[in-house]
Amino acid sequence: MSVIDELLRANEAYAAQFTKGSLPLPPGRKVAVVACMDARLDPARALGLEEGDAHVIRNAGGRVVEALRSLAISQALLGTDAVIIVHHTDCGMLTFTDEGIRRQLRQTLAADADHVAFLPFSDMDASIRDDIAVYRSSPLVRKDIPVRGFIYDVRTGRLREVEASRA
Amino acid sequence: MSVIDELLRANEAYAAQFTKGSLPLPPGRKVAVVACMDARLDPARALGLEEGDAHVIRNAGGRVVEALRSLAISQALLGTDAVIIVHHTDCGMLTFTDEGIRRQLRQTLAADADHVAFLPFSDMDASIRDDIAVYRSSPLVRKDIPVRGFIYDVRTGRLREVEASRA
Repeated sequence: MSVIDELLRANEAYAAQFTKGSLPLPPGRKVAVVACMDARLDPARALGLEEGDAHVIRNAGGRVVEALRSLAISQALLGTDAVIIVHHTDCGMLTFTDEGIRRQLRQTLAADADHVAFLPFSDMDASIRDDIAVYRSSPLVRKDIPVRGFIYDVRTGRLREVEASRA
Repeated sequence: MSVIDELLRANEAYAAQFTKGSLPLPPGRKVAVVACMDARLDPARALGLEEGDAHVIRNAGGRVVEALRSLAISQALLGTDAVIIVHHTDCGMLTFTDEGIRRQLRQTLAADADHVAFLPFSDMDASIRDDIAVYRSSPLVRKDIPVRGFIYDVRTGRLREVEASRA
């Protein structure tokens, strides 16, 4: 069975026991999570989130610059008023450079990625500080709400705060 | 207590029982999920994913155009070889237009968002077909792997397949 077919089988079991069919569209706990796509990080389990609680935005590295469209929609249209940013230890973004992945994509896919910024970083804590600065510099998102950035330790499951930004 | 402090308290409980501290960086099940940020959709629970299994990329709408950087990293550097795209019923992206959110951001934040594409859509199934077409047109991602798109029903917890793309 293909992995996607396995996921569909798991979904059948989930749907068979589903009891949360009448939740409202706006997140109940009014918070947006920006987190890395890393497989070892499950934001819902790690932060105690249930279906209906929070927007969860994820990308490679948990980079805010790529989350601004989503955060603007989350805040302006759906009422969230807090942001938590979660990067993590042993992140893949620490292991490569733009030049390296561009070379690899050229070799494996014949792709020209010279115009693409893959947003790797070399320092976890700096990546959080940079992303809070990106948040603060964007006109699209609210500055009068808490924005706090954390490193998740994939060995312990624990968050460590790096920086908080309040108006 | 602020909502972020509540999440941190939940994280302490998660970390106290954490047993998955030695998982490898590459996703064990070699699959990448692209899904909407919607609060009612928990991709891990809905698809039976455990920590370590899959990359999960999420944004407003689950739009592939904003996931291409992450998918390229997921495939080229971390070995995933299947993609599942999940949009859903009652999506916030069905409720607004670029013009509407631009006007709102101008009124509430004095923000000029005239240059920003917020990627709303007016037809769920078409949004999946469009996003599979975006995937297929990108040079950055593999075309020799399964890419399948689904609508998640927030009333039932069940996935419905819209389109599959195979090389």
